[in-house]
Amino acid sequence: MNFDALFNAQLDALRKEGNYRVFADLERYRGQFPKARNHAGGAERDVTVWCSNDYLCMGQHPKVLEAMHEALDKSGAGAGGTRNISGTNHHHVLLEQELADLHGKEAALLFTSGYVSNWATLSTLGSRLPNAVILSDALNHASMIEGIRHARCGKKIWKHNDVEDLRRQLADCPADATKIIAFESVYSMDGDIAPIKEICDVADEFGAMTYIDEVHAVGMYGPRGGGVAEREGLMDRITLIEGTLGKAFGVMGGYITGSTALIDFIRSFASGFIFSTALPPAVAAGARASIRHLKVSEMERARQRQQVAKLRARLDEIGIPHLPNPSHIVPVMVKDPVKCKMISDVLLDRYGIYVQPINYPTVPKGTERLRFTPGPGHTDADLDRLIKALHDLWSQCALSRAVA
Amino acid sequence: MNFDALFNAQLDALRKEGNYRVFADLERYRGQFPKARNHAGGAERDVTVWCSNDYLCMGQHPKVLEAMHEALDKSGAGAGGTRNISGTNHHHVLLEQELADLHGKEAALLFTSGYVSNWATLSTLGSRLPNAVILSDALNHASMIEGIRHARCGKKIWKHNDVEDLRRQLADCPADATKIIAFESVYSMDGDIAPIKEICDVADEFGAMTYIDEVHAVGMYGPRGGGVAEREGLMDRITLIEGTLGKAFGVMGGYITGSTALIDFIRSFASGFIFSTALPPAVAAGARASIRHLKVSEMERARQRQQVAKLRARLDEIGIPHLPNPSHIVPVMVKDPVKCKMISDVLLDRYGIYVQPINYPTVPKGTERLRFTPGPGHTDADLDRLIKALHDLWSQCALSRAVA
Ligand SMILES: Cc1ncc(COP(=O)(O)O)c(C=O)c1O
Ligand SMILES: Cc1ncc(COP(=O)(O)O)c(C=O)c1O
Repeated sequence: MNFDALFNAQLDALRKEGNYRVFADLERYRGQFPKARNHAGGAERDVTVWCSNDYLCMGQHPKVLEAMHEALDKSGAGAGGTRNISGTNHHHVLLEQELADLHGKEAALLFTSGYVSNWATLSTLGSRLPNAVILSDALNHASMIEGIRHARCGKKIWKHNDVEDLRRQLADCPADATKIIAFESVYSMDGDIAPIKEICDVADEFGAMTYIDEVHAVGMYGPRGGGVAEREGLMDRITLIEGTLGKAFGVMGGYITGSTALIDFIRSFASGFIFSTALPPAVAAGARASIRHLKVSEMERARQRQQVAKLRARLDEIGIPHLPNPSHIVPVMVKDPVKCKMISDVLLDRYGIYVQPINYPTVPKGTERLRFTPGPGHTDADLDRLIKALHDLWSQCALSRAVA
Repeated sequence: MNFDALFNAQLDALRKEGNYRVFADLERYRGQFPKARNHAGGAERDVTVWCSNDYLCMGQHPKVLEAMHEALDKSGAGAGGTRNISGTNHHHVLLEQELADLHGKEAALLFTSGYVSNWATLSTLGSRLPNAVILSDALNHASMIEGIRHARCGKKIWKHNDVEDLRRQLADCPADATKIIAFESVYSMDGDIAPIKEICDVADEFGAMTYIDEVHAVGMYGPRGGGVAEREGLMDRITLIEGTLGKAFGVMGGYITGSTALIDFIRSFASGFIFSTALPPAVAAGARASIRHLKVSEMERARQRQQVAKLRARLDEIGIPHLPNPSHIVPVMVKDPVKCKMISDVLLDRYGIYVQPINYPTVPKGTERLRFTPGPGHTDADLDRLIKALHDLWSQCALSRAVA
């Protein structure tokens, strides 16, 4: 049987649409983030990365690296088992305590990734709670969508960030339903933020559970980096807060926090938690060091906000349209996958600027974009170079009008 | 709303069955595996771990740790993004080449875990291939089962390791079906091994794709650690070989290998691959060092086989029944969750021997067991202590008869 023909047919369709993906092959230099070496296509060259989700450069923070080196030396490379079968390490226990404290919750549970934490938790809640209905924001992340799909429970999609629509759909649930409202705080591709307080109010009104994904907010918002819900004093009104250790915290892994009973329930029943090797001790130790640092250090957050504001102002100066939003994410809309990749290629080849074109399935077709994430590591000189490159490119290709 | 009551009701049911899980809280000592410190319950004590899946102690191998330290120093803690958006690091690319070479395939793809590699790959194949029917061995791992379930494609469960039943079910598939046979090489809980050649023969006969999970075999079987399929000269007859970096290789992560088109297909369409932060560079570097070492070193495998054979012979001497099988896994059947946990607790408290009781949902109810995994790090003195402890326990509690 020639199975390759089956695969190639679908890959060709992707290519035709301009949605075939080529990964940059980077080597980041510790101590010099956001600089990296790009190995792709044979020729090696140094580039400045403008699309990293290591938002605060914690992946190169000395405290994080020291904790990881130390744990490697003390406890070795891997965990050696699933959490139940010899894989629970003291570093996991300490990290879970740290995370519970970060979000003001009784308990926390680690997963191998944020993806798995969303998928495993929502599928377990949806399939095990009596008459569960999950009310999901229309722009929720793939990991939440797949978890809800896997649950095979009741499901209602409410209009993005639209509390009135949410209320209508809550009113529409069967009387005996266990209702779970699932949403994000910062939406990663548009950078807009959910009306968390209003969502909690309507949840209370209908006796619904609240599930928030703060993946793109933890470490960056709130006085201790607890996320947008912390900043707005709302953490205690959320039933379950989910986050990642792989973005602002700079390492890897995912987690949930909530009541002791809730966490024990997911720990005891979620397949994606139970049947998988635990995170390496060094990863847990590094994440914990990162969280502890960001609980008390405001410097990284302040500098991030500053660089984000500067990039926005400079884009405005040269007339390049970007999606307005109250977060750290600066999307420049191109709205065409081929053009988007072309701009990205020229930025890389001619200017040593790496910003990945964002295309389907990460964003809907027709909303392709360049997504900039300025951080504390970007210097003003980096910004000057970026702005000059974009200015050149937009002038040469009459792009600012074309893509406005 | 009191959601905790909902959670506690289901947790209480688990407790009543004896299936509530308490994790040991370990700190493994690099250089002294399988020794570890157990933090659980306040009192700390040193224990010997007899149930680790770091089968060959590669988690403490100097080459692995050196590679991880070096990558940490060079490239920092995390990958900083999904594989598509700035998260592909040169270490990932090198590791994928190493894995493709290990299994004699054109290409390989990394995932954050073996669980995710199975789940994401099977759900993508099942949902995207025309008229897919997945034929799944009855004892396949949870990650495969959930992947197949998520695919919502045709599904047939064949009797465990029964090629005649598989043949019947293949004959039963619609004429236009794309048939995918999914199975494991070493089954982790019983330690038996699939009849791979016969499965490949029947696959050829019916034009079916073969998908093998070698999670409990890679590193340990075959002249280069390519798994049971390598040992039996069958790798080229398997369409897709899946494995983990978290067991014999001692680190963390999962992967698939296969044709260029197959790998590119999964890379391009699998949600669980696309929408998740990539493995840390240091994890990839450590795994690569481990694989490279085990490609040329036979010492660890030879010593493992020796210690497995010794444990079996010693158990026979003292009349403790264990499941016979041709692998490195030594299951001592207890067949009762409460008794199983009791034995495990006594071994830990009185003898400093840690072997986790294996209960539902990891094994079917009524097949509870102690699962021993002797490795190159267990000394003959460790073995003597274990045998003495089991002998004491079985005599005192008249267990050998009770559980035979
Ligand atoms: C909103 C959201 N949730 C969850 C995840 C998954 O987290 P992780 O990268 O840790 O798997 C991502 C991105 O990767 C995300 O954007
Ligand atoms: C047969 C089998 N496949 C896959 C997995 C998952 O691999 P990982 O631990 O890397 O998630 C496991 C165990 O954890 C397993 O036993």
